[in-house]
Amino acid sequence: MSNSTPLHAATLQDRPSDGRRAKGLRSRNALLTEAVQLASVDGLEGLTISSLAERLGTAKSSVHAAFGSKEALQIAAIRRAREMLIELVVAPALTVPAGLARLEALGESWFSYLQSDVFEGGCLLCSASAEMDGRPGPTRDAVAAVMAEWLQLLAESIAAGVDQGDFASSTMPDQIAFELNAIGMAANWHHQLFGGQTAFTLARRAWADALAQLHPQPSPRRRRSKP
Amino acid sequence: MSNSTPLHAATLQDRPSDGRRAKGLRSRNALLTEAVQLASVDGLEGLTISSLAERLGTAKSSVHAAFGSKEALQIAAIRRAREMLIELVVAPALTVPAGLARLEALGESWFSYLQSDVFEGGCLLCSASAEMDGRPGPTRDAVAAVMAEWLQLLAESIAAGVDQGDFASSTMPDQIAFELNAIGMAANWHHQLFGGQTAFTLARRAWADALAQLHPQPSPRRRRSKP
Repeated sequence: MSNSTPLHAATLQDRPSDGRRAKGLRSRNALLTEAVQLASVDGLEGLTISSLAERLGTAKSSVHAAFGSKEALQIAAIRRAREMLIELVVAPALTVPAGLARLEALGESWFSYLQSDVFEGGCLLCSASAEMDGRPGPTRDAVAAVMAEWLQLLAESIAAGVDQGDFASSTMPDQIAFELNAIGMAANWHHQLFGGQTAFTLARRAWADALAQLHPQPSPRRRRSKP
Repeated sequence: MSNSTPLHAATLQDRPSDGRRAKGLRSRNALLTEAVQLASVDGLEGLTISSLAERLGTAKSSVHAAFGSKEALQIAAIRRAREMLIELVVAPALTVPAGLARLEALGESWFSYLQSDVFEGGCLLCSASAEMDGRPGPTRDAVAAVMAEWLQLLAESIAAGVDQGDFASSTMPDQIAFELNAIGMAANWHHQLFGGQTAFTLARRAWADALAQLHPQPSPRRRRSKP
């Protein structure tokens, strides 16, 4: 993505330097607030200049003026979803120490974010990943870049935990990042498809068990015991 | 789903009883073979009477005659994807004994199926789950029913492993089914989004580790050791 601020250090919105630009950004931000909701329900392919204008009861020309093309709108929606991920999931976890505590916090903030139904149709990045995977192009590249950043953040957090002795030295950060990400994606999927809160009970237990297994001397009985 | 044959006992196709019906079923089957490929790339919402006719270079009227509506076509595609899951993933695993060995076989046949790129755009059931989750209706219900069957099959396989002593008595079948399913879904997602074979290396290790942890006396050092 052209937005090169790393996931753990991004500011949330452009800061306008004059009144006219400020108004334009407010308008664009308002459009994006609706765009990510529309895309979460109808898919990124369902997010078009026309469908966004219709949802907002506004003229297509004003949506077109803000984005220029369907592809630019889709990519802007992915960037907004990335900002929301930073604000709601990453930033809260950065307030706790690196290592095990931060990974526990990342899981908790991720599940809280999914559970609060921030998106009408479930996590946009999760669904966009599945939707775009077979469609080469800039939109897909934007989704893949954000998901790669997220996996990298998880892997770096795990590596920090190894460095400070929270986790066994044999821990493989990329492996565990894959597994933790799988748990969160499955929580979103299960909650969206089957409803209810069971998904989060299952996912929180899976996340805690996965981290417990990384302890330098894991207890065989720590895991899988019924509550 | 109206197709009530359980996942572990389904036959793969209707058996026609006369020549005319046989021809109709062959035609319908040929259409479905393309329909699942189209849906795997363009999404279930991209699968319409028109788009399927266009892909096949045939008349819309003949596609309409076979299915009657877009929704019926989508549901028929989900049923076909379910038949493929049975044929390619479930049936091979039923040839090995229940319990740990069968769960190892289910993982292997699932990853082989994902790795062989049976679907042009990745596993249709995986992507349809993410696509349809926010869209109530019969198509979504059909997807949810197949995924519930799959989770149930995993949970029953785990329970069988507990019964015969392969797994600790404290094992929670629904919890482990959620975790194993999460690994397979993530393998499809990672492979489709990032390409290459890394997804399957990660997923096979995650699956093996997850099963190893269910052993009645798991070795703390069995897991997470670098190869």
